[in-house]
Amino acid sequence: MHAYRSHTCAELTAVNVGQTVRLSGWVHRIRDHGGVLFIDLRDHYGVTQVLCDPDSPVFSEVEKVRSEWCIRIDGEVKARDESLVNPKITTGEIEVFIRDMEVLGAAKELPLIVFGDQEYPEETRLRYRYLDLRREVMQQNMTLRSDVVASMRKRMWDKGFREYQTPIITASSPEGARDFLVPSRLHPGKFYALPQAPQQFKQLLMVSGFDKYFQIAPCFRDEDPRADRSPTDFYQLDMEMSFVTQQDVFDTIAPVIGGVFEEFGGGRKVDAPAEWPQITYADAALKYGTDKPDLRNPIEMQVVSEHFRGSGFAIFAKLLEQEGTEIRAIPAPKGGSRKFCDRMNAFAQKEGLPGMGYIFWRRTELPSEAKNNPEHPLFQAREQELVAEYGSGYKRYSVEGMPSQEDGSHMEAAGPLAKNIGPERTEAIRQQLGLGVGDAAFFLGGKPKSFEAVAGRARTVIGDELGLTDTERFAFAWIVDFPMYEADEETGAVDFSHNPFSMPQGGLDALSGDPLEVLGYQYDLACNGYEIISGAIRNHKPEIMFKAFDLAGYGEDEVRKRFGGMVNAFQYGAPPHGGCAAGVDRIVMLLADEDNLRDVMLFPMNQRAEDLMMGAPSEPGSDQLMELSLRVIPQE
Amino acid sequence: MHAYRSHTCAELTAVNVGQTVRLSGWVHRIRDHGGVLFIDLRDHYGVTQVLCDPDSPVFSEVEKVRSEWCIRIDGEVKARDESLVNPKITTGEIEVFIRDMEVLGAAKELPLIVFGDQEYPEETRLRYRYLDLRREVMQQNMTLRSDVVASMRKRMWDKGFREYQTPIITASSPEGARDFLVPSRLHPGKFYALPQAPQQFKQLLMVSGFDKYFQIAPCFRDEDPRADRSPTDFYQLDMEMSFVTQQDVFDTIAPVIGGVFEEFGGGRKVDAPAEWPQITYADAALKYGTDKPDLRNPIEMQVVSEHFRGSGFAIFAKLLEQEGTEIRAIPAPKGGSRKFCDRMNAFAQKEGLPGMGYIFWRRTELPSEAKNNPEHPLFQAREQELVAEYGSGYKRYSVEGMPSQEDGSHMEAAGPLAKNIGPERTEAIRQQLGLGVGDAAFFLGGKPKSFEAVAGRARTVIGDELGLTDTERFAFAWIVDFPMYEADEETGAVDFSHNPFSMPQGGLDALSGDPLEVLGYQYDLACNGYEIISGAIRNHKPEIMFKAFDLAGYGEDEVRKRFGGMVNAFQYGAPPHGGCAAGVDRIVMLLADEDNLRDVMLFPMNQRAEDLMMGAPSEPGSDQLMELSLRVIPQE
Repeated sequence: MHAYRSHTCAELTAVNVGQTVRLSGWVHRIRDHGGVLFIDLRDHYGVTQVLCDPDSPVFSEVEKVRSEWCIRIDGEVKARDESLVNPKITTGEIEVFIRDMEVLGAAKELPLIVFGDQEYPEETRLRYRYLDLRREVMQQNMTLRSDVVASMRKRMWDKGFREYQTPIITASSPEGARDFLVPSRLHPGKFYALPQAPQQFKQLLMVSGFDKYFQIAPCFRDEDPRADRSPTDFYQLDMEMSFVTQQDVFDTIAPVIGGVFEEFGGGRKVDAPAEWPQITYADAALKYGTDKPDLRNPIEMQVVSEHFRGSGFAIFAKLLEQEGTEIRAIPAPKGGSRKFCDRMNAFAQKEGLPGMGYIFWRRTELPSEAKNNPEHPLFQAREQELVAEYGSGYKRYSVEGMPSQEDGSHMEAAGPLAKNIGPERTEAIRQQLGLGVGDAAFFLGGKPKSFEAVAGRARTVIGDELGLTDTERFAFAWIVDFPMYEADEETGAVDFSHNPFSMPQGGLDALSGDPLEVLGYQYDLACNGYEIISGAIRNHKPEIMFKAFDLAGYGEDEVRKRFGGMVNAFQYGAPPHGGCAAGVDRIVMLLADEDNLRDVMLFPMNQRAEDLMMGAPSEPGSDQLMELSLRVIPQE
Repeated sequence: MHAYRSHTCAELTAVNVGQTVRLSGWVHRIRDHGGVLFIDLRDHYGVTQVLCDPDSPVFSEVEKVRSEWCIRIDGEVKARDESLVNPKITTGEIEVFIRDMEVLGAAKELPLIVFGDQEYPEETRLRYRYLDLRREVMQQNMTLRSDVVASMRKRMWDKGFREYQTPIITASSPEGARDFLVPSRLHPGKFYALPQAPQQFKQLLMVSGFDKYFQIAPCFRDEDPRADRSPTDFYQLDMEMSFVTQQDVFDTIAPVIGGVFEEFGGGRKVDAPAEWPQITYADAALKYGTDKPDLRNPIEMQVVSEHFRGSGFAIFAKLLEQEGTEIRAIPAPKGGSRKFCDRMNAFAQKEGLPGMGYIFWRRTELPSEAKNNPEHPLFQAREQELVAEYGSGYKRYSVEGMPSQEDGSHMEAAGPLAKNIGPERTEAIRQQLGLGVGDAAFFLGGKPKSFEAVAGRARTVIGDELGLTDTERFAFAWIVDFPMYEADEETGAVDFSHNPFSMPQGGLDALSGDPLEVLGYQYDLACNGYEIISGAIRNHKPEIMFKAFDLAGYGEDEVRKRFGGMVNAFQYGAPPHGGCAAGVDRIVMLLADEDNLRDVMLFPMNQRAEDLMMGAPSEPGSDQLMELSLRVIPQE
């Protein structure tokens, strides 16, 4: 027999009854039932119930075993009594009577219990990650991650892509974040950098003629940590193609990502990749207040400035006299109660706004003589309306406050805003937004940049709180037509708004006009409110690149100095090319339904970018610093 | 029609004749045949002949095109004249008549010609890597590498392994080489390290219960560069399994590696994985003079000390009076000429030895009256012998110097060594080594450590020069039973000879005897003289680990300080586990039949660990150093 196991802990079924088997695994749970010890023996694959009665030659040793000890047992497989069969696990038909046991690895007292759902502070979980990872949900998350990555690879291979490994110890990369530096021992005073992304190398691969590249690529950014980002390294499904348009990139990657969500989405609805909408950056900002909209939420914001211009609501009317201002409405179907509207107003105040104006529409009250008076004709009329709307299940006592027909009859608009602008403007707003009794709308005004983000968050809260957001769905949207440039709010200086290597729409010609009007062939894919892909058709023409950088204030010398490798390469027959990168960690997070990236990473750093388990970072030896010609500046 | 191509440059055949197509690619070669321009248009997939005659509306533009310009052409597919069909390429039946052309990317004068086989200095190749990579052999090497890695992944998945990504920015790893350090911005004066291998993490994964792990893992060692090693990062197929013995690891990985060699070996013979011999470290040193023997070479060295003890060859006889000395013979079948023996002697001198004694066996000369005298009975007898041995194809004029029967008759031993030890000892050596006329043997003596390496190299040269080594074969051998410890030659201090984390054979008991006698469950796989795998069954028991480190002079505190993460983990129910890591770059190098690792890497550093194309390493900004609290010590 094998030294450690004849079967895994998920293999034995009724067909093995009578066999002598060998199992190895961890003591998941021990119960003492009248002197008989029942152990759930767990390995990566499952759990098998093994038991030891006082007749067993190793009873006294088994008695000493504790939770999470790693043991090897030999024993006989017996069928469970029918009443004790556990259909939930594959080994539920049998149990194994221990005849021999060996302790493979004993365990000290546990700082973290593996069995059950007890919660622990993140520091404890990370310090004892090897125990934390034994927990069922973590085993699932990590195998999910592994399977997702494998699936991505297979799907990319199927599309004719090859994976190429690009350098990790390399030159500084101009992705906009902070590089991790690596001192060179052979070249004192010089440093390598870890790549923020393989951007330059994948473009060089296209110039080298490789046509279709992908890589599950580690990326490194020295950023301040937060929950949805790893403070050190993270992974991207990075891809690039030559001789393609933006639509080609979409057509290639959408089925890959969509397929992964179908495969691992656990039955949640996945929008068909061919139907993912393409929304311009400008439209996304307007309708959703963000460039990563969550389309599970059906709410779309609208511009309603006209209804407030010169109206009796002085705040908005005055605001609109300033250039570049707008009033936007967030429709909130089914949000038509003062309680909800007040809660949303409080939300806006918490976000730093003075508040959020609202209107909600409710059924007009019955005259007092008709209220609760089934004999009154008005009561009867309202009752008929409701029966027509809700069927015979409708209950009398709920006549008051139920929605009415959608034609606006028997309906009134509530809220201070409605009073200020008067019934006509209010009704025009209602009609524009397509709302009715029981619905509400919230209003924000000013320069869009100043309130868009809050509006977007309000939209999310409204969708969540009103149950409008379909949580059993993955909803995707391509965001396209990103502006190439933006002006600094204060100085007015023009700089790249996103990736400086993207091809400007309209090429060299477009760059001779107003830079702020130039759009790039640059795109993102949003899923459920997260950006999961970002990409572009690249600027492969040196003359357009120099002009594009010039507009952002970077001279040719500067460009050559910072991106010399790539710019030089473009002078030797560069093909048109483009691609994208998908965030692996974030995709797994969405699929695992987790909201912390660290729950889908094996050995993440904590929020202070430390690994307390391994003791990183740590002080180097003085000989190491000497070899690197470095001295640490003492902290004050 | 698509913006850039309707077909790749490897797609068009006779079935496309008459179609209007669009192709994009690089101008591989231009020829002007009587005013008609013939262009070999190349992309990643192949080459298509396109041509432009003066009737074409774009003739004058096509005239301007130069080598390696990236262009798009539209044109009509026409069948080639039968006499012009090129059966070597898929598109050899057709040619495309250019009707429209667009320059996608022009090229400056080329520092490196892509077409043809011209050789360039490595510095040029690396500086213009994007041109170098366009060359056919480099395209092949890189796609080979990609396909090998993909095949490894598929084979590991098929064996039930999952790939898990371990941290890259992490703690110092105790692999024996120098770490690359990464200064921490958030923790001034502290540094992360890049992993020399994911050793500790993969062991932690086993403690975490993941059972079967693999990773195509980037590894980082700050080593001084040489041809068969990358100065910065390299890749391993890293794997680890729980609940396994050494043989389980062999049975798992051998078919994976063997399968990869079968798949990509280009028809070269691959030894069947189940038949790879297991050779002890001690035997390998003796027979092959190395722990990575090349078994394509059939030569096995032997100990022949007894034949020299007390013999007339004073140098060896005296040597053998010292303890721990040995005389070893390198048999050299078909090496029996003075010229070859002298050449090998010179080789030994070049390697720093005083020389290498030899004996070679030759046919006794015929008496002078019989030489070249077909009438002489001795000539006729010898001729009959040779006809019997070589058949009627045997030629008269080669009677002299041809080998005789193997029984030693008509044979004499030549060389000073033979004279010194006399005919009986010489004959005993010949019989032990199984040699005959036309063969030679070389002898080295002393303490084995002092000459083993040279003996190994001599064995290689002999095998190569005599054509004994089968160059059309991949020959594998597991090397097992590595010693756990070695004593320093000078101080006698005991230290780990290889991986300190390996399980000593015999466990705790074995560690109470002579450390130098302790063998580890540690193993390598050699292929054609290269170590391509290294691995071990790990020491998962804290008490054995502390004892093992103690023997090498590391106290418990030191062990906890250096390997605390792993040692702590082992106290919480560690499973027995083991694994190995295979060198991806080296395997690809063997398959591609290259002898420089840089020819199977996309963007390698040069031998001074610089990337001149990207400008790495480079001087950081003073703000970057400030952020990292570092100061560079000025060089004298």
